[in-house]
Amino acid sequence: MSTLKLGYIGLGLMGKPMAQNLLKAGFPVVVHNRSRQKVEKLVRLGATAADNPAQVAERADIVFTNLPDTPDVLGVVLGENGVLAGAHPGMIFVDNSTIKPAASRQIYQRLAEIGVSSLDAPVSGGDIGAQQGTLSIMVGGDADALEKVMPAFMAIGKTVTHIGGPGTGQVAKACNQIMVAAQMLAMSELLIFAQKAGADPEKVVGAVRGGAAQCWTLDVKPQRLLAGNRAPGFRASLQSKDLNIVMETAREYGMSLPGAGLLAQLYAALCANGGGGLDNSGIIAVIEALNNTELKHSG
Amino acid sequence: MSTLKLGYIGLGLMGKPMAQNLLKAGFPVVVHNRSRQKVEKLVRLGATAADNPAQVAERADIVFTNLPDTPDVLGVVLGENGVLAGAHPGMIFVDNSTIKPAASRQIYQRLAEIGVSSLDAPVSGGDIGAQQGTLSIMVGGDADALEKVMPAFMAIGKTVTHIGGPGTGQVAKACNQIMVAAQMLAMSELLIFAQKAGADPEKVVGAVRGGAAQCWTLDVKPQRLLAGNRAPGFRASLQSKDLNIVMETAREYGMSLPGAGLLAQLYAALCANGGGGLDNSGIIAVIEALNNTELKHSG
Repeated sequence: MSTLKLGYIGLGLMGKPMAQNLLKAGFPVVVHNRSRQKVEKLVRLGATAADNPAQVAERADIVFTNLPDTPDVLGVVLGENGVLAGAHPGMIFVDNSTIKPAASRQIYQRLAEIGVSSLDAPVSGGDIGAQQGTLSIMVGGDADALEKVMPAFMAIGKTVTHIGGPGTGQVAKACNQIMVAAQMLAMSELLIFAQKAGADPEKVVGAVRGGAAQCWTLDVKPQRLLAGNRAPGFRASLQSKDLNIVMETAREYGMSLPGAGLLAQLYAALCANGGGGLDNSGIIAVIEALNNTELKHSG
Repeated sequence: MSTLKLGYIGLGLMGKPMAQNLLKAGFPVVVHNRSRQKVEKLVRLGATAADNPAQVAERADIVFTNLPDTPDVLGVVLGENGVLAGAHPGMIFVDNSTIKPAASRQIYQRLAEIGVSSLDAPVSGGDIGAQQGTLSIMVGGDADALEKVMPAFMAIGKTVTHIGGPGTGQVAKACNQIMVAAQMLAMSELLIFAQKAGADPEKVVGAVRGGAAQCWTLDVKPQRLLAGNRAPGFRASLQSKDLNIVMETAREYGMSLPGAGLLAQLYAALCANGGGGLDNSGIIAVIEALNNTELKHSG
């Protein structure tokens, strides 16, 4: 079996450590990024550089993308000097970005016309999971393509779940974000409610996190907020973008999701007030503003 | 040290097994319940019966109540032949009900005037936790009273957290319910969203429950819903009542809680449509109704 030649486009907070883990696992990796600086760091680690996405596609068996939003991925794949322009039959396209399921299906169709398979493969686990190679990968697309990509996935993730056909990886990620955002808002409301009603928020969290309310969010985030730390982690602007993907997809299917709708609105308020760069737990700033109060720091 | 004489008023789904565990631990227990039938079951297990709450208070060192809602507790404590009428200095009153923090503070004040200590001590862990004696107990009130009650608490619960002064146990329980209800709604929306968008809800849950969305709710409830099981567990009517406690308390403090407000409204809709007897995960019925669709059963 010959070694798979990989391409990685988009070397941001997530993409860079993921490309590094592919290099560490022994794969040859050709990389591209809009800002050249990040490319050079990867080249020093053994990657080769390409001038544009088409060139990556020409040189690789599997081309990964990891980009901020739907228009970025559509541009990099279908635009000038895009992946489509350099793709060859048998190549597999893997998108690690979180984008609209409909866009993933569109890309799948366009690439299928020239004999190229596509997987939508968004991840969860954050920048730390990306660095440690412990991401959860949610995959939509064909099983035979997934089988071929699996050796590469094992270098960047811990669990790989094949959800179903094209777009369903993105649907799973959207579902993930509904729950995560709901927990962030509920945590924010319960901390401010506790404080306002005269109970120590830290003691309240200690009392409830072992019961039916138990969640990773309560395990990890309150202690950071109570120490005055709102740095990301997972940026609120991306949480907001992901909730917009949920709501746009819901609209596409004629769905009513009152909870997710409220979450999208409150994250939009956070971003409108300059909080997009905070951690997604920074949604507490909206609850603070609504109540003209601030969570006290214990530190 | 003489054995503490206990009283237990309210032998419902939670109160009955909790009184049983106190008996099993060797405490003498005098019991009272509106419906006489449940009293007789406890008498067969070794309890003695009292005709009214005042009589329980006359005979016991520590009097527990476990009743559905705020007016029930106020009536049993402050009403005719109530706990207050039979209480004696040095007695301790312990309320295991989930009621408004303000009512717990009112009871604390009234009983303090006659030398009786009070603890608000709502529990989480459900009927199974009550049966197994593994409840989490959230306590508001004075530390010296808690110290005296602790031997009894150890017979009914696994963890006891002293939150702070009177009412703060109820505040912690209200916080617990904000998070639990938020997870129930988010789970419901993500299951229906996944199905409508063409992904298998069961596979989606499997993919997301190990990541940042991890929670007890996703660990336990989707498999019941996907098997068509909406029986309680924790009744939706009680979840609705508890959210009303949150919102009434929020109003008392002049607070805005948009997430909890929406949750209270959607649980009110569930109850208005005859769903109060379902499990609290039955909130999915509201999302189904809004979308004119049903979660498919895998069973």
